[in-house]
Amino acid sequence: MRASRYLIATQKETPSDAEVISHQLMLRAGLIRKLAAGLYTWLPTGLRALRKVERIVREEMDKSGALEVLMPAVQPAELWQESGRWTQYGGELLRMNDRHGREFCFGPTHEEVITDLVRNELKSYKELPANFYQVQTKFRDERRPRFGVMRAREFIMKDAYSFHVNAESLDETYQIMHRTYCAIFDRLGLDYRPVQADSGAIGGSDSHEFHVLASSGEDDIVFSTESDYAANIEKAEAVAPSGERAAPAEELKEAATPDQRTIEAISQFLSIDATRTVKTLLVKAEVDEAGEESNAGLVALILRGDHTLNEIKAESLAGVAEPLTMATDEEIEAIIGCKAGSIGPVDLKVPVIVDRSAAHLADFVCGANREGYHLTGVNWERDLQLGQVEDIRNVVEGDASPDGKGTLEIRRGIEVGHIFKLGNKYSTAMNATVLDENGKTVIMDMGCYGIGVSRIVAASIEQNHDEKGIIWPDAIAPFQVAIVTLNAHKTPIVAEAGEKLYEQLKQAGYDVLLDDRKERPGVKFADMELIGIPHRFVISDRGLAAGTLEYKGRRDADKQDIAIEEALTFLIKASPRKGL
Amino acid sequence: MRASRYLIATQKETPSDAEVISHQLMLRAGLIRKLAAGLYTWLPTGLRALRKVERIVREEMDKSGALEVLMPAVQPAELWQESGRWTQYGGELLRMNDRHGREFCFGPTHEEVITDLVRNELKSYKELPANFYQVQTKFRDERRPRFGVMRAREFIMKDAYSFHVNAESLDETYQIMHRTYCAIFDRLGLDYRPVQADSGAIGGSDSHEFHVLASSGEDDIVFSTESDYAANIEKAEAVAPSGERAAPAEELKEAATPDQRTIEAISQFLSIDATRTVKTLLVKAEVDEAGEESNAGLVALILRGDHTLNEIKAESLAGVAEPLTMATDEEIEAIIGCKAGSIGPVDLKVPVIVDRSAAHLADFVCGANREGYHLTGVNWERDLQLGQVEDIRNVVEGDASPDGKGTLEIRRGIEVGHIFKLGNKYSTAMNATVLDENGKTVIMDMGCYGIGVSRIVAASIEQNHDEKGIIWPDAIAPFQVAIVTLNAHKTPIVAEAGEKLYEQLKQAGYDVLLDDRKERPGVKFADMELIGIPHRFVISDRGLAAGTLEYKGRRDADKQDIAIEEALTFLIKASPRKGL
Repeated sequence: MRASRYLIATQKETPSDAEVISHQLMLRAGLIRKLAAGLYTWLPTGLRALRKVERIVREEMDKSGALEVLMPAVQPAELWQESGRWTQYGGELLRMNDRHGREFCFGPTHEEVITDLVRNELKSYKELPANFYQVQTKFRDERRPRFGVMRAREFIMKDAYSFHVNAESLDETYQIMHRTYCAIFDRLGLDYRPVQADSGAIGGSDSHEFHVLASSGEDDIVFSTESDYAANIEKAEAVAPSGERAAPAEELKEAATPDQRTIEAISQFLSIDATRTVKTLLVKAEVDEAGEESNAGLVALILRGDHTLNEIKAESLAGVAEPLTMATDEEIEAIIGCKAGSIGPVDLKVPVIVDRSAAHLADFVCGANREGYHLTGVNWERDLQLGQVEDIRNVVEGDASPDGKGTLEIRRGIEVGHIFKLGNKYSTAMNATVLDENGKTVIMDMGCYGIGVSRIVAASIEQNHDEKGIIWPDAIAPFQVAIVTLNAHKTPIVAEAGEKLYEQLKQAGYDVLLDDRKERPGVKFADMELIGIPHRFVISDRGLAAGTLEYKGRRDADKQDIAIEEALTFLIKASPRKGL
Repeated sequence: MRASRYLIATQKETPSDAEVISHQLMLRAGLIRKLAAGLYTWLPTGLRALRKVERIVREEMDKSGALEVLMPAVQPAELWQESGRWTQYGGELLRMNDRHGREFCFGPTHEEVITDLVRNELKSYKELPANFYQVQTKFRDERRPRFGVMRAREFIMKDAYSFHVNAESLDETYQIMHRTYCAIFDRLGLDYRPVQADSGAIGGSDSHEFHVLASSGEDDIVFSTESDYAANIEKAEAVAPSGERAAPAEELKEAATPDQRTIEAISQFLSIDATRTVKTLLVKAEVDEAGEESNAGLVALILRGDHTLNEIKAESLAGVAEPLTMATDEEIEAIIGCKAGSIGPVDLKVPVIVDRSAAHLADFVCGANREGYHLTGVNWERDLQLGQVEDIRNVVEGDASPDGKGTLEIRRGIEVGHIFKLGNKYSTAMNATVLDENGKTVIMDMGCYGIGVSRIVAASIEQNHDEKGIIWPDAIAPFQVAIVTLNAHKTPIVAEAGEKLYEQLKQAGYDVLLDDRKERPGVKFADMELIGIPHRFVISDRGLAAGTLEYKGRRDADKQDIAIEEALTFLIKASPRKGL
């Protein structure tokens, strides 16, 4: 591509409404433009990167045996009513009526459509397993779209759905997709981690998220320092502290703690480390099957003072209402007789669930269930029954890894992929069956597998940039090579040499941008660096006189002179991934 | 691709709701499935053809210098209000509200979005001409979606928009796009015609439609037998009959024609050919600038009895209301004093516009403006003034070609492309300007260029099929080659030979479907023919013993035996377009 016939569209100013670096750079480098909140036009340079991501995703999905289809973006309400999601799905579902008043939505996902297709097309276990994917435009009406294409309303996703006669078959395909996703993210040149994820309300056993590591990520992901263990924070298990609980050494005493309501205030006031306090959170109890709430309708969750509650873990426990709902101040005062800051597990009138770490404490401090008082020297079994012990907290750095190897680290991640065993949620609701080997009708098992194609472009930039701009991995660079000619409009031999190299590299299969614009060298260099082209050749009058070009890799500190006739050989060595 | 791991999805029955052959075959061959009215899922086989169409379109657009972008499907109402189309566009515009109540539409076209982009990005004539295209999913809420993907609601279109500093530049790009479209449809292997089209209400001078010739087409297109002249019926000029009008030979007489109201009835009743009658149509007159309708608000259009009115031509005339509106029976009776069947131009109280062919008649028959009476032997100038003569009829087969070469033929066509000079309609409404060479702000000229990508798949089938199924052109065949192995599950050497040939042809760059299913030979042959794969090799026990394969081209009457080692060489000769 010749820059003189291309839309470079770089900008000097950092747009004021772009919060994260990828959003800023995608606007400044001329990759995208905003049409409206959460709606972006992909300019030529951005689209080139996007298409390369799509291509890698397709190639690996095809290799895995998945079959590509293309489902409509607009979906009839009837199917969503059948699955029950027409009412369950919240404001993110963009609903509309057609000219005849029939209800439709702009699909944020396609479980219903694919399940409808498969129940009509596949009749026998012999046709299974089957895995269908598409690369398609989706819409989620985010309340607060932000970070550019990272959390846009309209976005491009690769979604795949697999169908199985039994759980073993689902497990096999799930493992294939896990490997396929690793192959995709490897080829994309991303630093990523597959992490165990919570499978949420959908049920189903297994779920992995694929996170690109970046400080701007919205998710906390947890790794072991010494093993492959990785999970998102919702899912990461906090193991029980090792060793026996210490024996009681102090006596139980009540201490006046007037106006001390937070853990921080209490530990300062009593000169005791927060790790020796517990906090007591009151939440709504699960309504039992007879429709009656047990025990005043509340449950107490006991955590060590320095720990935070993991809501996902807590709400999945029997007896705890889902979604997790905190008791109101009025309920607490009415039932316990004091404010939230003074509650504690001793003589508490509601059932208690104790976190593993809190259960390991001896001589700890807790609220006295009397306004303005706390208890010190509290000991399980001696002063109160221990009862139910569970993992209900978020892990913290330094916790032991659940696999017994090393300790945990926490990093920020951007979710770019998610694989998921759906089980039979949709196939049951929509009666998607096949005949098994014995001629018996069985509900199919399903898996689903998503990749945020447009989000990957942003995530890659979050991970690969410097103060000058984007640094593309070779595999998805809009152009692999830039040729910058200096003063070519005044120096015909420079223009000729540029054209010659341009044709030579194109012939060799590279995506080349020849910057033949009548601009100052500084402007051209800055643009090529901002756009982030991995390899750059500069052709100048002076260089040609010496028979050389100047080469600089986007990550290189220094440039180097190369004999003109060596340029292609040099490039092949620097960027073996050519001709994508 | 191995058929055993693929979704063949062929059907024996012709679906009852599919009216045209392409719709029937796309369902039967497993190319598409209906999700809801006008919404189709593309199954793997259909998608393969669709992607090949997309690829050819992209390659030629890129070659033309157009730059690919991707605009959002969902568009904010504000831009459509700016262009005025939010209210003008009818029920085909699918409108919706987001969660905050803001108005959007699912874009049926992107003039507003691209004009907004370009007015923000381009500032100088130096950056022009510019031509941006996208391949994208669009939605038109057709009142009566039908013919499968031919007239679907959700469809894939290539749309391009060019921007210019003056009309000459627009004309240059228009010519380039005309050539590009010919190159695209040539490569697609379609029998098509570029035809002059009416540019409609949008204004702008030039417009060409590209039609695939097929008897199921919804448009009438007109050709010369002896030149390149081609136009759609709306646009095709009906030239004046050659020679002088004959001199009057009969006397003007009034004939009683009780209950004879149609041209057919009159010509039978009076024993006169319909070509010697005229019919008089009363339509609404244009309201003049002062807001007053002239002459009782009606205008009479006079046509030869056997001709039909061309509404587009008529409504474009000064004095005629646009859109063309027929007078009601009440208006006719009130103003003329008789029913529609008895009107005629003699002593008519409203202005008259006479079609060129009607103006050439002598001794003709027309209504007498008296209920139940007609005039015979009527002659222009002698019995009534001729006044305004215009081209207001549809051409018929045998008419002289407007370019003076040959006569006209009429065929049915499916519109698959349209190029259009928009002029400054959108750029004026949205104030899209650049600075010209003199530093003066000028409104840009625009062109737009559409191709119905998904429709092309159907149009190709309309043109290429037989009683067994689809016959794909090599360039867009889902698979170029089928390898059918007979009883391979019982005959390992057949299976091995199939695998070997499969790998060999794939290596050579062909898209191959290896039909390795455990089905009867007849079932496999029928499926491969229904799907329409251009080349078929059959591998059998018996053939292998003789060292041969059986080859049959999809259009061939007979099969032929070929030495196994000659298969690739043979195929390269039969289908040089490989490795798409």
